[in-house]
Amino acid sequence: MHKPVAVRNIPRADQSVIDELGSMGVATVHEAQGRVGLMKPYMRPVYEGERIAGSAVTILAQPGDNWMVHVAIELCQPGDIIVAGITADCTDGFFGDLLAHSCQARGVKGLVIDAGVRDTLDLKEMGFPVWSKAIHSKGTVKETLGSVNIPIVCAGAQVNPGDIIVADGDGVCVVERQHAETVRDKGKAREEAEVAKRERLQNGELGLDIYNMRPRLEEAGLVYLDSLDDLDK
Amino acid sequence: MHKPVAVRNIPRADQSVIDELGSMGVATVHEAQGRVGLMKPYMRPVYEGERIAGSAVTILAQPGDNWMVHVAIELCQPGDIIVAGITADCTDGFFGDLLAHSCQARGVKGLVIDAGVRDTLDLKEMGFPVWSKAIHSKGTVKETLGSVNIPIVCAGAQVNPGDIIVADGDGVCVVERQHAETVRDKGKAREEAEVAKRERLQNGELGLDIYNMRPRLEEAGLVYLDSLDDLDK
Amino acid sequence: MHKPVAVRNIPRADQSVIDELGSMGVATVHEAQGRVGLMKPYMRPVYEGERIAGSAVTILAQPGDNWMVHVAIELCQPGDIIVAGITADCTDGFFGDLLAHSCQARGVKGLVIDAGVRDTLDLKEMGFPVWSKAIHSKGTVKETLGSVNIPIVCAGAQVNPGDIIVADGDGVCVVERQHAETVRDKGKAREEAEVAKRERLQNGELGLDIYNMRPRLEEAGLVYLDSLDDLDK
Amino acid sequence: MHKPVAVRNIPRADQSVIDELGSMGVATVHEAQGRVGLMKPYMRPVYEGERIAGSAVTILAQPGDNWMVHVAIELCQPGDIIVAGITADCTDGFFGDLLAHSCQARGVKGLVIDAGVRDTLDLKEMGFPVWSKAIHSKGTVKETLGSVNIPIVCAGAQVNPGDIIVADGDGVCVVERQHAETVRDKGKAREEAEVAKRERLQNGELGLDIYNMRPRLEEAGLVYLDSLDDLDK
Amino acid sequence: MHKPVAVRNIPRADQSVIDELGSMGVATVHEAQGRVGLMKPYMRPVYEGERIAGSAVTILAQPGDNWMVHVAIELCQPGDIIVAGITADCTDGFFGDLLAHSCQARGVKGLVIDAGVRDTLDLKEMGFPVWSKAIHSKGTVKETLGSVNIPIVCAGAQVNPGDIIVADGDGVCVVERQHAETVRDKGKAREEAEVAKRERLQNGELGLDIYNMRPRLEEAGLVYLDSLDDLDK
Amino acid sequence: MHKPVAVRNIPRADQSVIDELGSMGVATVHEAQGRVGLMKPYMRPVYEGERIAGSAVTILAQPGDNWMVHVAIELCQPGDIIVAGITADCTDGFFGDLLAHSCQARGVKGLVIDAGVRDTLDLKEMGFPVWSKAIHSKGTVKETLGSVNIPIVCAGAQVNPGDIIVADGDGVCVVERQHAETVRDKGKAREEAEVAKRERLQNGELGLDIYNMRPRLEEAGLVYLDSLDDLDK
Repeated sequence: MHKPVAVRNIPRADQSVIDELGSMGVATVHEAQGRVGLMKPYMRPVYEGERIAGSAVTILAQPGDNWMVHVAIELCQPGDIIVAGITADCTDGFFGDLLAHSCQARGVKGLVIDAGVRDTLDLKEMGFPVWSKAIHSKGTVKETLGSVNIPIVCAGAQVNPGDIIVADGDGVCVVERQHAETVRDKGKAREEAEVAKRERLQNGELGLDIYNMRPRLEEAGLVYLDSLDDLDK
Repeated sequence: MHKPVAVRNIPRADQSVIDELGSMGVATVHEAQGRVGLMKPYMRPVYEGERIAGSAVTILAQPGDNWMVHVAIELCQPGDIIVAGITADCTDGFFGDLLAHSCQARGVKGLVIDAGVRDTLDLKEMGFPVWSKAIHSKGTVKETLGSVNIPIVCAGAQVNPGDIIVADGDGVCVVERQHAETVRDKGKAREEAEVAKRERLQNGELGLDIYNMRPRLEEAGLVYLDSLDDLDK
Repeated sequence: MHKPVAVRNIPRADQSVIDELGSMGVATVHEAQGRVGLMKPYMRPVYEGERIAGSAVTILAQPGDNWMVHVAIELCQPGDIIVAGITADCTDGFFGDLLAHSCQARGVKGLVIDAGVRDTLDLKEMGFPVWSKAIHSKGTVKETLGSVNIPIVCAGAQVNPGDIIVADGDGVCVVERQHAETVRDKGKAREEAEVAKRERLQNGELGLDIYNMRPRLEEAGLVYLDSLDDLDK
Repeated sequence: MHKPVAVRNIPRADQSVIDELGSMGVATVHEAQGRVGLMKPYMRPVYEGERIAGSAVTILAQPGDNWMVHVAIELCQPGDIIVAGITADCTDGFFGDLLAHSCQARGVKGLVIDAGVRDTLDLKEMGFPVWSKAIHSKGTVKETLGSVNIPIVCAGAQVNPGDIIVADGDGVCVVERQHAETVRDKGKAREEAEVAKRERLQNGELGLDIYNMRPRLEEAGLVYLDSLDDLDK
Repeated sequence: MHKPVAVRNIPRADQSVIDELGSMGVATVHEAQGRVGLMKPYMRPVYEGERIAGSAVTILAQPGDNWMVHVAIELCQPGDIIVAGITADCTDGFFGDLLAHSCQARGVKGLVIDAGVRDTLDLKEMGFPVWSKAIHSKGTVKETLGSVNIPIVCAGAQVNPGDIIVADGDGVCVVERQHAETVRDKGKAREEAEVAKRERLQNGELGLDIYNMRPRLEEAGLVYLDSLDDLDK
Repeated sequence: MHKPVAVRNIPRADQSVIDELGSMGVATVHEAQGRVGLMKPYMRPVYEGERIAGSAVTILAQPGDNWMVHVAIELCQPGDIIVAGITADCTDGFFGDLLAHSCQARGVKGLVIDAGVRDTLDLKEMGFPVWSKAIHSKGTVKETLGSVNIPIVCAGAQVNPGDIIVADGDGVCVVERQHAETVRDKGKAREEAEVAKRERLQNGELGLDIYNMRPRLEEAGLVYLDSLDDLDK
């Protein structure tokens, strides 16, 4: 049942946890929380090089209608990320330079939207990062209500208001707020474990040896041949 | 955080409510609950002509791994529908005639899966309805755990275990269990309102008049021209 | 410049020409008019087995807004086909059983729409043929004006009001009204030429000989080899 | 290096082996040969219900040019299947009723093409089965050479002339000719093993027990919960 | 009916109007002309950062055949943009560095093509901007005629020869030549209105207040809640 | 039949030939070998500006399983390029910064993979070029064997171990090892022929004249009109 509401107050994770998750990046965070929480790979940054993390202020919008973005901006706090799911497939340009200025003025860190955006040259120049499904100039209307700060699905991922969003060149990941610290801890452990491995790999050691894969490969039945000509012998 | 679990007991809606939702079909149910809850349009029936409704037994699966389907079947009751979300895009054939026989033997009504299925000629012959993203023969493995009966996202829709699934030729819709009766009531009211309208439309009356659209069209600025030649005058 | 208008009167081709074009089918008509006029291959019939032809009553609609369909139905004459282009990509369900009943009551022959439709089981049962980009239950609003009976683009094809639409299992083709008779004549000639060829091919004669292709193949440099082993010699 | 050639003679597997592979269907054959050889899931039958197997006569064609189909038909023997790969993405209609009559007259069993076809109503009526990437009326030219009976890639699968093609409602699979008997044997064994399993599953036994999955699930760490409320405890 | 022609003379809009439209960019121009005229969002710049405007010299080409590009270049004047529509879906590389040099020598400003292009590193280095559907090296032939400077459909948009094309990072928009001045005027007004709004938004004022949305939101039924916990109360 | 093997020794082309092919780029190489060997246009570089060539070390992998990448790295020599085909559609992130460090330490020049990769910011910073179908963080498992250095299909192209891979901003092309020198020679000839043409085109001469197209255009029936108004005369 969808009744249009705008929820003023949402829980947020500790800023330090959010920042630490952001520094890890999407790939590490996703692994740390059990390989869940990723948005679909069609979600791409409008311009390259950004990595952000923040608390999700969520929007459920109707296709072609960006009315709720205005409602959401008022409810944001500095450091938040707006995350918009749409009730049907849509590539319209929900967001452009005016809304980006409004967001930036309120301290919003970025936008993640399962639809299109426009004024992309301006967004890059302003330094307002956006991850979207499409870039399209098609304008939207302000006629039909959606909701702000209710649980939504965005690009295949469940997002609750206040969940932590991490976004970078590898895509977008959602961390459930209740598990933010655990994920942070596991991510840190993962990063630390990788430091030594990275150095060994850089020195030319093989993953086959570092991870002790040879016995398992043999057990699974991998056969080494000297030449392709031996294949059907 | 994903910890692999299988939940034995889930709440279910009243069978009579489920049946009534099923008789309404996807389009009506979706409207009755405020135009939310639809899966993406790429979810299509493997064969035509079926309309089913049932309680969702949910699966979160890893791509290319159908192990959890076996776990889920044991936890189904007659009348349930298995709904499988995958943690990444995948078209592999997770389900075929053997699993369909197992489902049918346990009274499972159908399958909704955001991936591929196979043995489609058998599925049609057996009368086991499936809605899927793809038809593909690619086999799957049984190596990595997922979960059964946790909240999932399937084809863009949030599904909680025990939610009501309605599926027909128009796609798949999810009704939250807590609102099943309200949605049923609103759907019934909608169906009743449509009976009279349908008859009037069949008799050649226009929607313009039945819905009293002419004043609003005029107010919005629609101009009637006698001929296209008058357009740029 | 788009100013929302509804044009009451459109030119139509002779019914006999329309009927003859319909009997030829999409592939022949497309060839007869110089291999233009086809809609994109994503336009598929909602149910199989129909072949229709009629005069286009065109709609330019905004995404997610089916208001103009109601306006269009009043302007249709028996035998017309409604053709709807949308100003942006959209899969919403613009059309269902109520509108189909209204169309059928007015003698409309079918619908071609670059968006989604719903109530597909009803459409098949009623025998109201539809070609669409998607099947989806997502409901639409009636808030923003478009136009009726202006030139539009639908699924990659230019359509002027009164153009002839031919639609069957192979897709949808648009014939410019001014050239309908010429296309009909060329199509007939093509059909007649094919009768003899079909018979010869059914008797086992080869296209290579019927079309005298062997000299041109040789001139172009095709080399016949007895065996693949001769390839790199 | 592509030099346009047409190879007259190709090796073929024993007809009995081909027939047995055909009777197993795509899913079983694919499994029996180690889960390789499938074409992409976008390859769909033009009409439903057919299952065929035959020796591949291969075509490498340029986009929008069906010249080589005529060359290929002459080189077919009764029971062959024409398999056409294109050197670039293309949805044009390479094949229609005339070519289908020619194929049928020569005993060709069907067509598999990584492009479009047309005259689909005729193909169904004639009973000439086709698997294709698209249905589109767009005509093709006969201007640029390709080759016949050289190794090709079709819809993601490597096909050598004389390989066995199995195609049904689940897609298309390629069996290397040299391994046809081994695959047939493994497929038979698989089918036999499935008979008993199917019966046990039909009787309500669970895959969990038939395949003895419970210890492995436990070892892998699957936790059974009585209720979803126990999840975060 | 398509008869292959090349039209030597086309009307063009005033250069000053073209330049002013170019300076506004795609999003503003599209809004100014009533939210029509956009090409599909799959049309993307081959390299970033360009914004151009010019008069359309149109090409209707057959898939995989770039012959008409040569014909078109001769008919271009300095400042023109070549716009190519294809009669079927095609990703072949119609255009590379040689043709780009030829275009640049004749003063052509850029290319918009509903197909593929190649030599993209050269295009960027030369500073010859291209918007295309794909980047692909697949070569094309010169065998089948199309036309130059006839009305075409390109990526879903109707383009008449001499229409103004505006292209930037947000996509491609077509302005009908007859309405160029009106669209320019409306675009300017829109830009001016946005200056003040932008400043207010940058100062932290909300769109909700600037556009006086609060009463309409309330009327439409938006309910503000203090907390998500109040949702089902 | 797929039996999992890893082949230690593969033939490689002369380094000088590989380097010369690399310097020509994908478009030229593809033309020089008869317009074959291209991967699909969805294969895109993870970051721009790279052009590489090397000998293919091939991987056949199962979807979501990157175990064979570890096996392949050991079998690489400096200058090799790893090319990975997957047995089904998959966008999972098979490869990230750790594996890239391992590759770089062993002298591997780059990766071409018909699936997803991650850690793209790191890849760019390291200067390790990758061409892939997707960018996605989804992690993979190491459970199911594939093979290394057997013939594979990657993104629609046949690749044998030791074939030469050329990759740049225009995509990816495969050159059969046996024909490397012939292709190199033809590519050189092509490049040389283009130098003069490029200069003439830069000086404003037309392709119509350089390639002597006017008589063929006339013969094919192209009609020049002074104005579009003459079209239907």
